[in-house]
Amino acid sequence: MLKKTPKDSHTVMNELVLPNDTNMLHNLMGGRLLHWMDIAAAISAQKHCNTLAVTVSVDSVSFKHSIKLGDVVTIEARVSRAFTTSVEVRMDVYAENIPSGTRVKSNEAYYTFVALDKEGNKLAVPELVPETPAEQALFDSALRRRQLRLILDGKLKPHDATELKALFMDKE
Amino acid sequence: MLKKTPKDSHTVMNELVLPNDTNMLHNLMGGRLLHWMDIAAAISAQKHCNTLAVTVSVDSVSFKHSIKLGDVVTIEARVSRAFTTSVEVRMDVYAENIPSGTRVKSNEAYYTFVALDKEGNKLAVPELVPETPAEQALFDSALRRRQLRLILDGKLKPHDATELKALFMDKE
Amino acid sequence: MLKKTPKDSHTVMNELVLPNDTNMLHNLMGGRLLHWMDIAAAISAQKHCNTLAVTVSVDSVSFKHSIKLGDVVTIEARVSRAFTTSVEVRMDVYAENIPSGTRVKSNEAYYTFVALDKEGNKLAVPELVPETPAEQALFDSALRRRQLRLILDGKLKPHDATELKALFMDKE
Amino acid sequence: MLKKTPKDSHTVMNELVLPNDTNMLHNLMGGRLLHWMDIAAAISAQKHCNTLAVTVSVDSVSFKHSIKLGDVVTIEARVSRAFTTSVEVRMDVYAENIPSGTRVKSNEAYYTFVALDKEGNKLAVPELVPETPAEQALFDSALRRRQLRLILDGKLKPHDATELKALFMDKE
Amino acid sequence: MLKKTPKDSHTVMNELVLPNDTNMLHNLMGGRLLHWMDIAAAISAQKHCNTLAVTVSVDSVSFKHSIKLGDVVTIEARVSRAFTTSVEVRMDVYAENIPSGTRVKSNEAYYTFVALDKEGNKLAVPELVPETPAEQALFDSALRRRQLRLILDGKLKPHDATELKALFMDKE
Amino acid sequence: MLKKTPKDSHTVMNELVLPNDTNMLHNLMGGRLLHWMDIAAAISAQKHCNTLAVTVSVDSVSFKHSIKLGDVVTIEARVSRAFTTSVEVRMDVYAENIPSGTRVKSNEAYYTFVALDKEGNKLAVPELVPETPAEQALFDSALRRRQLRLILDGKLKPHDATELKALFMDKE
Repeated sequence: MLKKTPKDSHTVMNELVLPNDTNMLHNLMGGRLLHWMDIAAAISAQKHCNTLAVTVSVDSVSFKHSIKLGDVVTIEARVSRAFTTSVEVRMDVYAENIPSGTRVKSNEAYYTFVALDKEGNKLAVPELVPETPAEQALFDSALRRRQLRLILDGKLKPHDATELKALFMDKE
Repeated sequence: MLKKTPKDSHTVMNELVLPNDTNMLHNLMGGRLLHWMDIAAAISAQKHCNTLAVTVSVDSVSFKHSIKLGDVVTIEARVSRAFTTSVEVRMDVYAENIPSGTRVKSNEAYYTFVALDKEGNKLAVPELVPETPAEQALFDSALRRRQLRLILDGKLKPHDATELKALFMDKE
Repeated sequence: MLKKTPKDSHTVMNELVLPNDTNMLHNLMGGRLLHWMDIAAAISAQKHCNTLAVTVSVDSVSFKHSIKLGDVVTIEARVSRAFTTSVEVRMDVYAENIPSGTRVKSNEAYYTFVALDKEGNKLAVPELVPETPAEQALFDSALRRRQLRLILDGKLKPHDATELKALFMDKE
Repeated sequence: MLKKTPKDSHTVMNELVLPNDTNMLHNLMGGRLLHWMDIAAAISAQKHCNTLAVTVSVDSVSFKHSIKLGDVVTIEARVSRAFTTSVEVRMDVYAENIPSGTRVKSNEAYYTFVALDKEGNKLAVPELVPETPAEQALFDSALRRRQLRLILDGKLKPHDATELKALFMDKE
Repeated sequence: MLKKTPKDSHTVMNELVLPNDTNMLHNLMGGRLLHWMDIAAAISAQKHCNTLAVTVSVDSVSFKHSIKLGDVVTIEARVSRAFTTSVEVRMDVYAENIPSGTRVKSNEAYYTFVALDKEGNKLAVPELVPETPAEQALFDSALRRRQLRLILDGKLKPHDATELKALFMDKE
Repeated sequence: MLKKTPKDSHTVMNELVLPNDTNMLHNLMGGRLLHWMDIAAAISAQKHCNTLAVTVSVDSVSFKHSIKLGDVVTIEARVSRAFTTSVEVRMDVYAENIPSGTRVKSNEAYYTFVALDKEGNKLAVPELVPETPAEQALFDSALRRRQLRLILDGKLKPHDATELKALFMDKE
């Protein structure tokens, strides 16, 4: 089966923050951003899998800076690791206010997608081969994030999450 | 300062899954659901705080069942714990297909909101007083979820997350 | 055939008034509210009928208070009476401005739905059994509203609307 | 003060029924049509009043025919009578399926608007002068509809609605 | 085959400029107007062809005046010339600010549509017969616009565009 | 004043074609694509100008291939030439059907924007310096497109459009 690199699924989405996307403080609402991220990540997952791909989980997201009406939101997505029938997509989100010349990193996030055919059956996905040290680091840490998802989802006991557990024991 | 119960912030939202909310398999897209949940949770947080409230973080969410075009999505939100200037909102999401008489629990989720005045300054929020054993359990586990958010956000070292750490050490 | 109570079809919808829902005075536009009410009532009708249900008529609605940008609109819907293949849904609509702590009843309304199968054929619906005096009163007055609809729709002559006519003759 | 004819406020709106406007039977949802009618009627009311105009009431509407995905909806609106600070707008709604060459009258409706300045204060509106016999008939019957609105709104007792009452007594 | 006049395809669309349609200066965004024009022109083309009709090209459009939030946009569309399986639709766009009593012509535009059956095959369209001198002028100049489209689309060499070429040579 | 390259304003937008974006043949409607292109081009123009930028004209666009429901639309925009207070943005639009592995170039287009401050006054824009032969060719041909816009807008007589005129005379 085909192997792919993160570059193959690299997807950029730019959106303009319009009035209906904002709350009473004229800031982008978190839910709208999560929605845009889902579309960007779905396109990225599809590029890797060459199939339909649907969201199965969203890792926790923290919104550090408010994004204002009129800002340009840039979402960069690429697959960080492939499992048997699913992929983890890593996103970096930036907010730019062009007239004032400011650009901040808003947040990072991981969404997981499963590859499906048109009848909704799971499909095997191509392997992901990291090319740069940064991609390798994301590839490695993907296992810990997967264990965390399984624990949070009640499918793994904390005691059995060996990779995660090492984190907590470390440097005692 | 006023104390409040989870009942005070109880908010129900019902939405009908329309064509534009769905992907090529006619299933609700994850990002649309995250968006609806943000609005439901924001209303719940506002009811508790009696102020504006904006999303600061979204805990990980797992989508176990596909929700179909035409289904009714019910989101039940209520505050599970209040901190100094922020609240954690717990949601239970159900999907119902009325003609076929099926109703499943789609997922649970936690969103965190900060209370703000109209200039965007943080405000102290009322204390949350759980009334039932189930509410007490959510109140207690909120500390662990908060530690997890701080770790994931890089603001706390795993070694110092004493509540979470106990989970991993347990029953060795 | 199954009998149902108004509680069985009780449906709550909460919506946040966003910029695109408002006119130049920053008030919710009537048409947007009528649209939300239609979705809430359709869900309620479906819950009673356990089938698809489509709007056949909307009774007159009066908008007494302006609802502002940022307000939370709460629509409570439940079936007030079932006829052979149709149901009348009664709604109570509230508008709440959370930061200022005000909550007003915006209006009441009645929408009528017909139960259909997937080919669009009319279906018999469960009987509605009122449980409280208030529900009984709505159940009783439903006949008068039905006569009024038939007159307005040109299907009944005023002279033959015996229930309504009594209202006008009363206390002469 | 200026007098105006129904022609002065004549407003035509054409809309194409898109997927998100439809229910599971691929028919236009009633609520969406009520929303479009509100925008068409608001434009018509503004043309008559030369001011902002907001919806104060919607008369009962009956949906006789289902309107299908892809149909063209035509809404023709014009002011049927002016009162001191409000106008009644009459609409005729048509649905046309162009490839099959069918065009049906979907329904008629009356929305009432009040004229406001930018601070939300009521303003006097120009008189409406009907020009044709059909316009004169609508002008005359507007009084009966107004009495019906006042009764339904609890502001007039049926016994005192002299114009309406005559209708019910007629031809005994 | 049936002949038709421009009147037969005359289509009027009125839209209200809402917050989400505007940029940071509270002016209607060009892209939204192009979208509305596409729907109005598609309805007009369908009326002429009595079939489905899809956009194949949009001639250049110049936005001379800014259109403000709250303005009423009126688009008048009618077929200006029919070719074998396609029609050119001419639109006149007006922007009206009702409270201030101003109405300006915003722009003119030409969109071209091809007539299709439900499988997407091209269909012959009725001939267009202009009735007034203005309609005749639009009918005549349609040939020049068609040559310009073919040149811009790389399907015709400038040297062979005899009608257009005459324009440039004129009055030397 | 700052000089900029086309790379500085390079903007990529990816969108998924959802049901509401399509016509009865399940193809993307031209007007929706024009709307997305306007947003992508506006972001690109703002990046070059570091100010607000509003659309002043759209060159003719030809839609050669139908784009289907579920396709990914990629719009690549960059400034092709700067004039005194305006910029021309060139876009290349691609449509990709991921499961079937097809990707076609849908069309190219040019939109022109004017740079404005917050009060709506025109501002001088940075010079555009092409770096590659392809960028130089677009830079050069921008003058001909500008003459064509001026002619179509009635601001230039064909006879005086020396650059364009040469095109028609060529190789006689």
